[in-house]
Amino acid sequence: MRARRLLHTAIERRSAFARLSEQDLAFFQSILGNSGVITDADALVPFNQDWQKKYEGKSRVALRPRSTEQVSEVLRYCSSRRLAVVPQGGNTGLVGGSVPVFDEVVLSTAAMNKVLEFDEVSGTLVAQSGCVLAALDEHVGARGFMMPLDLGAKGSCHIGGNVSTNAGGLRLVRYGSLHGSVLGLEVVLPEPLLPPPPSRGGGGGSSSGSSNGATASAAATAGSTADGRVLDLLRTLRKDNTGYDLKQLFIGAEGTLGVVTAVAIQCAPRPASVQLALLACPTFAAACTTLRAARRMLGEVLSAVEFLDSACSDLATAYLDGVRNPLLPQDAAAAVAGLGEAGDTGGGAAVVARGRGGGEEGLEGGGVGDDRQFYMVVETHGSDADHDTQKMERFLEHVMAEGCVTDGTLAASEAQAKTIWRLREGIAEALARRGAVYKYDVSLPTAVMYDLVEVLRQRLGAAGFGPEGGVQVRREGGVQVRREGGVQVRREGGVQVRREEGVQVVGYGHIGDGNLHLNISAPRYDDDLLHQIEPYVYEFVRQHNGSISAEHGIGLMKAGALPYSKGPVAIELMRRIKETVDPYGILNPYKVLPQR
Amino acid sequence: MRARRLLHTAIERRSAFARLSEQDLAFFQSILGNSGVITDADALVPFNQDWQKKYEGKSRVALRPRSTEQVSEVLRYCSSRRLAVVPQGGNTGLVGGSVPVFDEVVLSTAAMNKVLEFDEVSGTLVAQSGCVLAALDEHVGARGFMMPLDLGAKGSCHIGGNVSTNAGGLRLVRYGSLHGSVLGLEVVLPEPLLPPPPSRGGGGGSSSGSSNGATASAAATAGSTADGRVLDLLRTLRKDNTGYDLKQLFIGAEGTLGVVTAVAIQCAPRPASVQLALLACPTFAAACTTLRAARRMLGEVLSAVEFLDSACSDLATAYLDGVRNPLLPQDAAAAVAGLGEAGDTGGGAAVVARGRGGGEEGLEGGGVGDDRQFYMVVETHGSDADHDTQKMERFLEHVMAEGCVTDGTLAASEAQAKTIWRLREGIAEALARRGAVYKYDVSLPTAVMYDLVEVLRQRLGAAGFGPEGGVQVRREGGVQVRREGGVQVRREGGVQVRREEGVQVVGYGHIGDGNLHLNISAPRYDDDLLHQIEPYVYEFVRQHNGSISAEHGIGLMKAGALPYSKGPVAIELMRRIKETVDPYGILNPYKVLPQR
Ligand SMILES: Cc1cc2nc3c(=O)[nH]c(=O)nc-3n(C[C@H](O)[C@H](O)[C@H](O)COP(=O)(O)OP(=O)(O)OC[C@H]3O[C@@H](n4cnc5c(N)ncnc54)[C@H](O)[C@@H]3O)c2cc1C
Ligand SMILES: Cc1cc2nc3c(=O)[nH]c(=O)nc-3n(C[C@H](O)[C@H](O)[C@H](O)COP(=O)(O)OP(=O)(O)OC[C@H]3O[C@@H](n4cnc5c(N)ncnc54)[C@H](O)[C@@H]3O)c2cc1C
Repeated sequence: MRARRLLHTAIERRSAFARLSEQDLAFFQSILGNSGVITDADALVPFNQDWQKKYEGKSRVALRPRSTEQVSEVLRYCSSRRLAVVPQGGNTGLVGGSVPVFDEVVLSTAAMNKVLEFDEVSGTLVAQSGCVLAALDEHVGARGFMMPLDLGAKGSCHIGGNVSTNAGGLRLVRYGSLHGSVLGLEVVLPEPLLPPPPSRGGGGGSSSGSSNGATASAAATAGSTADGRVLDLLRTLRKDNTGYDLKQLFIGAEGTLGVVTAVAIQCAPRPASVQLALLACPTFAAACTTLRAARRMLGEVLSAVEFLDSACSDLATAYLDGVRNPLLPQDAAAAVAGLGEAGDTGGGAAVVARGRGGGEEGLEGGGVGDDRQFYMVVETHGSDADHDTQKMERFLEHVMAEGCVTDGTLAASEAQAKTIWRLREGIAEALARRGAVYKYDVSLPTAVMYDLVEVLRQRLGAAGFGPEGGVQVRREGGVQVRREGGVQVRREGGVQVRREEGVQVVGYGHIGDGNLHLNISAPRYDDDLLHQIEPYVYEFVRQHNGSISAEHGIGLMKAGALPYSKGPVAIELMRRIKETVDPYGILNPYKVLPQR
Repeated sequence: MRARRLLHTAIERRSAFARLSEQDLAFFQSILGNSGVITDADALVPFNQDWQKKYEGKSRVALRPRSTEQVSEVLRYCSSRRLAVVPQGGNTGLVGGSVPVFDEVVLSTAAMNKVLEFDEVSGTLVAQSGCVLAALDEHVGARGFMMPLDLGAKGSCHIGGNVSTNAGGLRLVRYGSLHGSVLGLEVVLPEPLLPPPPSRGGGGGSSSGSSNGATASAAATAGSTADGRVLDLLRTLRKDNTGYDLKQLFIGAEGTLGVVTAVAIQCAPRPASVQLALLACPTFAAACTTLRAARRMLGEVLSAVEFLDSACSDLATAYLDGVRNPLLPQDAAAAVAGLGEAGDTGGGAAVVARGRGGGEEGLEGGGVGDDRQFYMVVETHGSDADHDTQKMERFLEHVMAEGCVTDGTLAASEAQAKTIWRLREGIAEALARRGAVYKYDVSLPTAVMYDLVEVLRQRLGAAGFGPEGGVQVRREGGVQVRREGGVQVRREGGVQVRREEGVQVVGYGHIGDGNLHLNISAPRYDDDLLHQIEPYVYEFVRQHNGSISAEHGIGLMKAGALPYSKGPVAIELMRRIKETVDPYGILNPYKVLPQR
């Protein structure tokens, strides 16, 4: 059996793994009940296929345990049978890590979605790993707190998946990484590290230290904590230097070392004041200058600095319903009500400035002017609205005066803020709708970050993978459509829509963290195109001392490319740790570590 | 051979370790030169003895390598000879981790004190591990940045020691833990993970990925990076999700897994505005209320919240030259110039209020009133002095109006700020001067934190270890001294000095992080006293789901107590990791992990 759609890495199924039998299913049903064992072919599709529909496995079963104890039982059984297992959270991962490569058993955390504890004084949350991030944010939001991370996939991704990928997201610049905010974890290991206790339910039989004062142990709520496979690191302490910080190993391990069953995390106080600006910058260098000014002038209230190129803006507005760029004149009114001229704050939203080309509207002239090549989303979280407004105003005045920002708008309501975030967060979805996408999530020094987009655009163009050429105007479905230089322009519902055709190279991401999302959008997956991209992108990144995965992880997609970011000694230590914890390699095989 | 001063844990020297020979010394000299090999008995004393003079080893040699390559050579040799090694930084550790237990070779980083790289845009610093924290803070300070951690020992502790203990310190509440701010590490492992490359100096011979784009590799500056013992994780990227985050394992490993040779760390921008207040609170509950108000009202500018009980204040002012408590009337003028009455901001320093008892001065009446049982140090770091002042003023008004703060002063100059910090930071030194100290550094829920001090005070008093009783007045060295209830009061240089005698139980620490430093000061170390303290303290901590080591680590002192904070599965995983990396156990033996 060979994995499909692996593109230029062919992987063989490991023969040491058993194949699923009827007895296996019967066992799973005895533990999880019928509803916890999914075998129906249609119902299995979403478990086998990743969010991008780029990776697809052929698992015959997906399991939905509800408790730590059930996870432990499942792993005990799979280990004894040498059945490979892929842990799955919200299945929003972008590197093919969350779906089977062949016929691995899918272990989904979807039914492990209970909040176990929230401390309203300290803001510490303990939750089962299958809780959806947005649901947790709502839970703690009602109590004056916010989750310390936020990402476009928040409506589906699970906190256990976030921890397992060390998700970064939109507010890392302020609230830091999960290596800092995760306080505790409960993890079920594939093999027991200690022999099982003599009797069930006795608990604490092994030593005076066996009752380790864990807070709200999820295992405890489900029964026994004495299972030698359950690594109980579920504490809610801000500081705890008692031996090696083992939980860190599982943050970002992408399901290869254990199944995270519960997470303790430090929430941040919900800010009393939030401000959000969308800014247009004429060049990437201007965006970098704007970033530095934001760091300096917004200082401690800065909570997000994102960027997108104008191609991303066009994609999001063209492919997604209701997505608007409030800085583009033709739909500004619809998207952000009350926008006036520069300096006019009537209607509550201040248009900071308006660059040239703002008034043009015709099919031909509606393009983005040269002064809007890049957009930035700048957000503040603070405790005093007056102070924050003053800081933001001074910042905006400064960057406008310096010419690094040519146009901008400040959201005057939650609805306007949503419009801005929707533009930024919609990019991944728009790209997915357009067709095939090659996604690269890299760290690079900010100054050279966008060079990668530009050199790749050139490189692909030179290899015949640029946007399609020629000029055509014709009617499609009763609508006049004009194509020129690979750009399709049409009016839909009174709004002018531009779509680039052919291969398109776009860049956006978390500029505040040096994190670029390089995306190559194409009509279909194509190995010739892929060979133009890889290893070129990885080589560029290595040459600039970057990282081939800033936040999405390695998964299946980049396992072979790991040596571009990690040296041989580091990779060998990873292997030894993997072998120590998972000697039969049943947990998420083929992922993260390169094949030997 | 038996370790001295181990108090109630007797440990035997492991017989598998070799004893140092003349050939060993000759080899070390051939690698490090004569100046890098210390064997003189007097010169060895500071390497053998810890900061507290509580732990003392009998090593016959201390090595001072200057480069990663030299460290690697030393470890290669020690491993082949089975010579045990204790890595030592500034030797300011408080749990007996940094000194030999028996005759281990001391490997000091004192000569590895070069700054390798500083990026003035991003604020990322790369330095050899032996750089002193204060020196680094000065280095980056001159460039507009600050180190993300600060502690009382900053003038001696090394950045490698900070990383190896996961030091917390005074500003964790704002800048987070080293698990978040350390970006990269270079570590020399006791055993190579890969065979040595075929030829010297060739470099990158093993695979296309062997040149891993590390930034400013300290090993590279010293020669070869191809040593299978050097784990090069020295990156300066904010985000890098490429495989397991191995550096995390060494943050807090206390020298048991490898020798940290270089550190890459994210510095914070030096704040444009700093404010510092010293406040007096009548009860610990009032201090907790003050903490919550500070979190809410100072929000994003809050950079430190410390507390000390009045006994700590008395100790620091009594035992250290030039240390003053600006809120105590008899020396306020000397310490903080220009203090006026409530509401008077003349002279630049605002006395926020003055509690009752403020005017009394006589030998009998100079005690601390009931309204000053606790002091808090509250600091802000911000980008706008006006905004920060406004926030601080509103906060102070609020806590005074609520009655949780009865007196307070805001530093109006750097000199005044130093006076306040000196009071807080001097406590450890004052305790050390007073005599023997049993130090416990625990995490506890804030509400019950001080209960531990109070119950222990009672417990020790009941067991006959309280302050000495009786009333005496007599002249000592021409000075009239009055003793009552264990308190000695005398005038020295016109200033009234109070000293508690006998056993004293005091509490201070990082209240903003839930971190109490419980200290039992005694005339001398005494096993009977120790048995009254341990395991009682650890049991109290476990019962309240705390941590037996918030920030100081485990070292030798708490290795046996680790099970109070970590379960058996976790301890077993630590052991397996230790065995994977250090199969002969030569690195910092007897520390961190409990004896089997
Ligand atoms: C629109 C969109 C926007 C995104 N934005 C961001 C972003 O800004 N920042 C960012 O970092 N990522 C982003 N991502 C990627 C993705 O959402 C994150 O990686 C997320 O953390 C994955 O969570 P999940 O629950 O979906 O995990 P999954 O996709 O289900 O799994 C991801 C990996 O973790 C493992 N895993 C999942 N749950 C567990 C568990 N309980 N125990 C052990 N292993 C487990 C899986 O085996 C897999 O290897 C985005 C994705 C989309 C679709
Ligand atoms: C006055 C005073 C105040 C203090 N305040 C604080 C505080 O606020 N917060 C806090 O956390 N601690 C505090 N400490 C404790 C101590 O300063 C810290 O633990 C500090 O981080 C130790 O650094 P060091 O260089 O002195 O390490 P050392 O004491 O030399 O060593 C500490 C441990 O780390 C290991 N080690 C040292 N260097 C290396 C290396 N390069 N590679 C591998 N292992 C190494 C040693 O083997 C030992 O186990 C204080 C100590 C004093 C004396």
